[in-house]
Amino acid sequence: MSPEVNVFLLPRHFEPDALRGGIAVVIDVLRASTTIVTALANGARCVVPCGDVAAARRAAANFARDDVLLGGERGGVRIDGFDLDNSPAAYTADRVGGKSIVFTTTNGTAALLRSQGADRVLIGSLVNRRAVVRELAGDARAVHLVCAGTEGCVTAEDLLAAGAIAAELAGNAGGTSSRDDMALIAKELWDAESSSSGRLQRALRQSRGGRNLVELGFDADIDLAAQVDSIPLVAEYFAKEGRVQPVR
Amino acid sequence: MSPEVNVFLLPRHFEPDALRGGIAVVIDVLRASTTIVTALANGARCVVPCGDVAAARRAAANFARDDVLLGGERGGVRIDGFDLDNSPAAYTADRVGGKSIVFTTTNGTAALLRSQGADRVLIGSLVNRRAVVRELAGDARAVHLVCAGTEGCVTAEDLLAAGAIAAELAGNAGGTSSRDDMALIAKELWDAESSSSGRLQRALRQSRGGRNLVELGFDADIDLAAQVDSIPLVAEYFAKEGRVQPVR
Repeated sequence: MSPEVNVFLLPRHFEPDALRGGIAVVIDVLRASTTIVTALANGARCVVPCGDVAAARRAAANFARDDVLLGGERGGVRIDGFDLDNSPAAYTADRVGGKSIVFTTTNGTAALLRSQGADRVLIGSLVNRRAVVRELAGDARAVHLVCAGTEGCVTAEDLLAAGAIAAELAGNAGGTSSRDDMALIAKELWDAESSSSGRLQRALRQSRGGRNLVELGFDADIDLAAQVDSIPLVAEYFAKEGRVQPVR
Repeated sequence: MSPEVNVFLLPRHFEPDALRGGIAVVIDVLRASTTIVTALANGARCVVPCGDVAAARRAAANFARDDVLLGGERGGVRIDGFDLDNSPAAYTADRVGGKSIVFTTTNGTAALLRSQGADRVLIGSLVNRRAVVRELAGDARAVHLVCAGTEGCVTAEDLLAAGAIAAELAGNAGGTSSRDDMALIAKELWDAESSSSGRLQRALRQSRGGRNLVELGFDADIDLAAQVDSIPLVAEYFAKEGRVQPVR
């Protein structure tokens, strides 16, 4: 039987119980997913996603001051008193190596917390697409690709990444099945927009998340997020421990 | 200011009040929208959409027996005791000329009834795409493209038609704005899938609605539904009168 692959355009499009028994892949390409994967690839010990700023400050207080960095955004920019914003470029090995990152963003962390009813919760982005697909290969459980969106609105960049993952999964598995046509739509969108790297960059810039970033001066982050398969790392959220860590 | 164009993948993705002040275009390409437009183009006096079979039988009883036909489907096939199924091919001028059609389908009529809070409710399909776009041209009100889906599931064929309409609207108006990226996604999908008529037919056959029809032996209806701009007719649902009629 071909594995089931579902795409949810927004976290509110599913009831948390609906993911039970499956594997969720949470996608916030611009930028939370890309930033988490980058941070872990650059040697951060873990990322601790928090639903709001107050929770993040409390969580950070549980670490020795030298071991932790506060990261994330509200309105796309660094939160007052935080060490890092939500730009993957800021999460260099120099800066994050050996540190725990307490992290809160407007959409990505909320999507992550809503998805924790799944058997496993992975972080999906374009940069670690192939690594995620390899992790899923051969697993019979349903895959739920959860797009974070932006403040409750559908964003094309997340659907594109869902399509990138769905296309690779279908290619590997010789076909997949779905509850509805969203996976098909995502794949078609990905096929159309990934025909050249220029086209992909343009699509990401035209998306809702991309337009926001261009306005805020974070153009370079779009280029980073568009580097498909550049980071061979699987990041998993362990709900009980409340942290995202690399899968070794 | 460029007009606002929103795409809803499913009727449940909006609260009925959200359409107030705007123009809804209800899309169920395979097949209710296509069938309604075809029936009116072939001389039916009106189409009376009903939410369920019992309501349809009651509504039909209000007409003289010779003036009315009962049409629609459950499970894709003709309802017991009904005159017509939901195949546009069945609604020939011979059969429907001068008749009122009392009509109930699984998804299309439900989407229509849910959209009646809008200022105007038009029927959207590929066959009357250009006519609908002309009707909308120059109107400053927001346009809400409502995809009917299939039993609560997203269908690619409806999103394709939404994309066809959104693309033509954006072309006419020199750009449109949207609440989220769904209109952008729909347009990209349409651009990719409409590059040739063969490709469009294939996309419609692969969609959820298309696969259903192929299974039921209604392949020819897909070809009819794919005839973009073949019917220059605008069909409008007048909620107070409870009927769909051509706009003259």
